[in-house]
Amino acid sequence: MTFHTFPEAHLRKFTTDVFLKMGCTPTHADLAADVLLRSDLRGIDSHGVARLSGYIRLWEKERINATPDIRVVHETATTATVDGDAGLGLVVAPFAMKIAMEKAAIYGSGWVSVKNSNHFGIAGYHALMAVEKDMIGISMTNASPLVAPTYANERLLGTNPMCYAFPAGKYPPVVVDMATSAAANGKLEIASRANKPIPDGWVQNKDGKGSTDPNELKTGGSLLPLGSDKDHGSHKGYGLSATVDILSAVLSGANYGPWVPPFVAFLDPPSDPVGEGIGHFLGAMRIDGFRPAADFKSHLDNWIERFKSAGTVDPNKQVIIPGEPEYGFEQERVLKGIPLIDAVVQDLNTLADKLQIDRL
Amino acid sequence: MTFHTFPEAHLRKFTTDVFLKMGCTPTHADLAADVLLRSDLRGIDSHGVARLSGYIRLWEKERINATPDIRVVHETATTATVDGDAGLGLVVAPFAMKIAMEKAAIYGSGWVSVKNSNHFGIAGYHALMAVEKDMIGISMTNASPLVAPTYANERLLGTNPMCYAFPAGKYPPVVVDMATSAAANGKLEIASRANKPIPDGWVQNKDGKGSTDPNELKTGGSLLPLGSDKDHGSHKGYGLSATVDILSAVLSGANYGPWVPPFVAFLDPPSDPVGEGIGHFLGAMRIDGFRPAADFKSHLDNWIERFKSAGTVDPNKQVIIPGEPEYGFEQERVLKGIPLIDAVVQDLNTLADKLQIDRL
Repeated sequence: MTFHTFPEAHLRKFTTDVFLKMGCTPTHADLAADVLLRSDLRGIDSHGVARLSGYIRLWEKERINATPDIRVVHETATTATVDGDAGLGLVVAPFAMKIAMEKAAIYGSGWVSVKNSNHFGIAGYHALMAVEKDMIGISMTNASPLVAPTYANERLLGTNPMCYAFPAGKYPPVVVDMATSAAANGKLEIASRANKPIPDGWVQNKDGKGSTDPNELKTGGSLLPLGSDKDHGSHKGYGLSATVDILSAVLSGANYGPWVPPFVAFLDPPSDPVGEGIGHFLGAMRIDGFRPAADFKSHLDNWIERFKSAGTVDPNKQVIIPGEPEYGFEQERVLKGIPLIDAVVQDLNTLADKLQIDRL
Repeated sequence: MTFHTFPEAHLRKFTTDVFLKMGCTPTHADLAADVLLRSDLRGIDSHGVARLSGYIRLWEKERINATPDIRVVHETATTATVDGDAGLGLVVAPFAMKIAMEKAAIYGSGWVSVKNSNHFGIAGYHALMAVEKDMIGISMTNASPLVAPTYANERLLGTNPMCYAFPAGKYPPVVVDMATSAAANGKLEIASRANKPIPDGWVQNKDGKGSTDPNELKTGGSLLPLGSDKDHGSHKGYGLSATVDILSAVLSGANYGPWVPPFVAFLDPPSDPVGEGIGHFLGAMRIDGFRPAADFKSHLDNWIERFKSAGTVDPNKQVIIPGEPEYGFEQERVLKGIPLIDAVVQDLNTLADKLQIDRL
């Protein structure tokens, strides 16, 4: 596979230009680009600029509104429901997280459920907004149905990620940012490109039988929940995914379960929606609502040190702190640039030609 | 295995008597008995009256305070930290949940982190307190270290359960109540009694090798996180368990990670504590802080109906709604009584003789 490496600033300018061409305001274009760039910087290549042309295709089909009137439609002192007006999740989710943080600043915590939104990028971006203000950040989103609950032979849930982010003292934040499926779709794509089988327990085929073929999703198969099968706790992965779905969509008035609109433009949304768009759930809690932030951080540092120094099964491995690998990527890529595979570069240059902006 | 079935009221009286003999106030004895009975009613036999003599042994070692002064030590409008004064978690956690609910009633949401507590029974009990008031209930606790994080060959985390409970309309509440390990300890005990191997992916032995021996924990082995191994997402189960540990203990000032005191009296707590007792985290959010409760419930009913009617892999199975099996047990056992295995009955009768109360 051929990689081309671009400086962050160069990719950021390109990405902002694309969103401006879509008709976003400069503020929204900058923000949406920031969310995508952060994903590439953090090494989550599946959620970064590689998705740009997908957003454009949804906008062309009028399923993304480039100039949304994002607004609070219901609230109490510490809770709110936001209508994203079919905007990019990349701008709707930060809007909602900002409200959660404003409420937390006054009352200790803030919680926002969001309807009528679209794909919001990496969950970690939004949760980390809170961490910068010495808050605990929580973010979740539902997603187009790809996962079969335990015993089911239908795709009823998305990979529905949840993220919890905590500020540490001398170490990077602890960021648990995870799909609630056994494996994310991106891993199947990598195996498919490499023409390699995937481990048992990631997918089932259209008949509900376990399979190691990375292409099963293209022929009616499903991803499996975290836990893979009942014996290994797939009902727990399914339960977590259900939790994300309920907090993000049943609570806000978005579509849930199999009614969540697909993220790809070539598949139409269900004709019988049960809500509006997709849903997110965002929360912020002030650390000093519980104990002084400095105390929390020094204990979290101690937690991190204890876990990192733990005995391991393999002398060449170390216990990994959640968020540590992504932080490592970020430090490196800020300096050395962001590598994109050839196929992504070509796709983005085709997009550039179509939108009449400078190629990468 | 021989079972003896007791009417709920009979077991409740017995359990209350035990807590009274421990020196609990009548209010605390009633509450603690209610938490244990609810567990037995809901079919979670490992967390019910079978644990009574374990609580007594910890009390005899002065590790449980029967007359705690449970109090708020830090708070904002919607957050609080509670010091459980080494009381039974069975009374400390409901105290904390009540505060969360009082805050939610006024401000929309309430969040309480708890230190200096003990085993709190089933997480579902506390979360369901909120559901009765049309709130979403959340409860978590850390627990004595039995689980090795991904790559580790040490027990650094407990089975650290998390629970999310949601009120439905015409259906029972959706209750996701799960250990964040691949399997709970109780399942190993059942296999051990039956002299049967356990599935791969539940435990590793003291050398960090996978094993199917249900007795590995007794010889230095560890439980594995949900996901079982890195390929199947054990870093996610580990991340969830870490989240529970941080919210419950790093946030409150309780012991975390390998410093959490053991639940059994024959093992001493670590001599170098990093906090006080074990920790919990409890939360409540008013549904009508986001949308009218009736709207939420009718959509959750629709969610439930869609999932229950899904096509399945096996025509003899149905997709199970989280909390549905426990609700079924509860309906049945309220009427027909609670079955206890012979060993538990004998243990409780020995306890009765020691405490000079009526045998079962």
